[in-house]
Amino acid sequence: MNAPAPALRETSAAPILLRVDAGGVATLTLNRPEARNALSEAMLRALGEALGAIGADRGVRAVVLAANGPAFSAGHDLKELTARRTDADGGRAYFKQVMEACSAVMQMIVRLPQPVIAAVEGVATAAGCQLVASCDLAVASESARFATPGVNIGLFCSTPMVALSRNVSRKHAMEMLLTGDMISAEEAWRIGLVNRVVAPGRAREEATALAAKIAAKSGAVVKLGKEAFYRQLEMDLAQAYAYAAEIMVENMMAQDAEEGICAFIEKRTPRWKD
Amino acid sequence: MNAPAPALRETSAAPILLRVDAGGVATLTLNRPEARNALSEAMLRALGEALGAIGADRGVRAVVLAANGPAFSAGHDLKELTARRTDADGGRAYFKQVMEACSAVMQMIVRLPQPVIAAVEGVATAAGCQLVASCDLAVASESARFATPGVNIGLFCSTPMVALSRNVSRKHAMEMLLTGDMISAEEAWRIGLVNRVVAPGRAREEATALAAKIAAKSGAVVKLGKEAFYRQLEMDLAQAYAYAAEIMVENMMAQDAEEGICAFIEKRTPRWKD
Amino acid sequence: MNAPAPALRETSAAPILLRVDAGGVATLTLNRPEARNALSEAMLRALGEALGAIGADRGVRAVVLAANGPAFSAGHDLKELTARRTDADGGRAYFKQVMEACSAVMQMIVRLPQPVIAAVEGVATAAGCQLVASCDLAVASESARFATPGVNIGLFCSTPMVALSRNVSRKHAMEMLLTGDMISAEEAWRIGLVNRVVAPGRAREEATALAAKIAAKSGAVVKLGKEAFYRQLEMDLAQAYAYAAEIMVENMMAQDAEEGICAFIEKRTPRWKD
Repeated sequence: MNAPAPALRETSAAPILLRVDAGGVATLTLNRPEARNALSEAMLRALGEALGAIGADRGVRAVVLAANGPAFSAGHDLKELTARRTDADGGRAYFKQVMEACSAVMQMIVRLPQPVIAAVEGVATAAGCQLVASCDLAVASESARFATPGVNIGLFCSTPMVALSRNVSRKHAMEMLLTGDMISAEEAWRIGLVNRVVAPGRAREEATALAAKIAAKSGAVVKLGKEAFYRQLEMDLAQAYAYAAEIMVENMMAQDAEEGICAFIEKRTPRWKD
Repeated sequence: MNAPAPALRETSAAPILLRVDAGGVATLTLNRPEARNALSEAMLRALGEALGAIGADRGVRAVVLAANGPAFSAGHDLKELTARRTDADGGRAYFKQVMEACSAVMQMIVRLPQPVIAAVEGVATAAGCQLVASCDLAVASESARFATPGVNIGLFCSTPMVALSRNVSRKHAMEMLLTGDMISAEEAWRIGLVNRVVAPGRAREEATALAAKIAAKSGAVVKLGKEAFYRQLEMDLAQAYAYAAEIMVENMMAQDAEEGICAFIEKRTPRWKD
Repeated sequence: MNAPAPALRETSAAPILLRVDAGGVATLTLNRPEARNALSEAMLRALGEALGAIGADRGVRAVVLAANGPAFSAGHDLKELTARRTDADGGRAYFKQVMEACSAVMQMIVRLPQPVIAAVEGVATAAGCQLVASCDLAVASESARFATPGVNIGLFCSTPMVALSRNVSRKHAMEMLLTGDMISAEEAWRIGLVNRVVAPGRAREEATALAAKIAAKSGAVVKLGKEAFYRQLEMDLAQAYAYAAEIMVENMMAQDAEEGICAFIEKRTPRWKD
């Protein structure tokens, strides 16, 4: 999985984003290791298209987001951005387009009906760290490391911090953002950025096992629950309860709840419709 | 406390919810162990009535919420819910009534003037886990376990997640909600769902000691502080400070603040009025 | 640093708040050790003035907030407050003025362009604990301890809880607020109130090293990032991304981003303009 990348990866024969489906789990693999899986325009477009297709694909019940090479993702493609400083507007319109495209991809992950699980083996920095924070769950290997180092190059990780600060507490987020320092997988686990730390080389396998567990549930129910999770987080307590109680009633009326509850009472395995 | 439940617990001689008051601490004990203390309509009604009475009882300064039997609470009573699928509307009106009643009880805990401390010996699942998350404080024994397993039976724990996601960080909440897996008391402590883990069989005693400590403070001041805590959490920083500064002034003008501050300066024990 | 305070500290020769600048780092030291660095009117005024001056001082790129004596700060000056109970209005107008002044100082820290790092050697209680929570980062020595003990004297720590509850999770904040108990530096680190715990006597040195690291970044970029951090926290996800994407574009157009990114690509040290 982490074998050295052959030369000329970006030919048509080696797409920058791979998708493999198995058992209801779609695995997306960032596959531009020689560029440390930078979120170039092309990579953002590929991710957006893949997520769009997955969102509409009822055969997919969970998603694993992995990466080839030593870096999970190094964030924005700085050379690509810098090249546009010679535009008539100094690059402003282009930068706006890229930042909006990147923010859109991150929000697609949050809004995707299926849960998305990051599998992080290497270094996840800047928008690469944001990608991990944006996933619903994350598995890191002991060799994974995380940083929001934009401050070191004069470009504060302002969009990454939207996701980071919604995952970890303020002082932890601020330390990463202000120092730009790398943190270990263990520390990422301690502060809540990742769910599990596994042996080196095992992140994809463990994330896939987690995805398979989720894929065995009713897809319709998981979709309803994931959507409700993020919506109720932005409400006050009374609103959140009013909304969640409605969701529970709708869920009770769904066929998979009837089947699931019956199966539970009858001590048998449920057969999901969705 | 965890002795096997005798048969016929639900007779009039064995109420489903027990209340014992001592030293300003009211202890409510879920007492339907043979039904794993499910939050049936009757249990929700009993909890609502007990909390209503406690809220109006100036003799109660703190509340412990405990349970008899191996389960703290298994959440909704699935058989009771399922029985209403034969209603003309498929149960919809009934489900709505139960979900709203349950959400109301959870919010009563949050809005109760007195702090509520969960004492968890066994398994707290679904709305049972929500009950723990809704309490102001929680003590768990090493044998306690927690889960939001609704996803396994096609009924996502959408109302439990309102409380859970306001206690623990996103990835931790999502892992519990999407996998339905049980977590240990130790893990619940690590992620912030409970305050303390104690030896098996000691949860009620430790929760009571914590309640007694709080009961020794001014009840009026604790009430004012608890209410302000949850209100300011839903404000932005400037609003929260404007509100909290007003509360501090009102608090300073209260007799118990005058007495408490004097006692502190004079190095003596305060004598509370409220 | 923690030497016994000489008598007569509050003469004009020994100001209650010291400021020393070195290498772009301004260190403010609370210097009323015999009064446990209480946040008296005079201390709040001194802090407000010092923070105002620092905010306008382009030579300062990071701030360390430290204290002389065994207490970091004991919070409000209770004797000063109590003395005004004989005012015609029982002290109400004065209490309002002090609470608003204190809340204003806490918010000045949050809004200061430069990051503020608390260096805590001793006990930080009530508004002293709030001061730590209000800083962007905090370093504590192993001998530091933290509490919001107002409830013990009939004055719930309602303004401190605004900062505390935005640093740590609900059950942790509630335990501190309802019990008034002291927690260790280790526990403060576990729950997210401080970033690092260091050997006794080393907090100021470690905080200064952290400040120096931040001072080596572009001040303009740090300012932009810190401001955006707290603003986006109060927005919903879509708003936060729209806002942060705009900030990223502005940041890209800034001279220090151009320089920083070029330096990164050319593998050299950046030379900041701001």
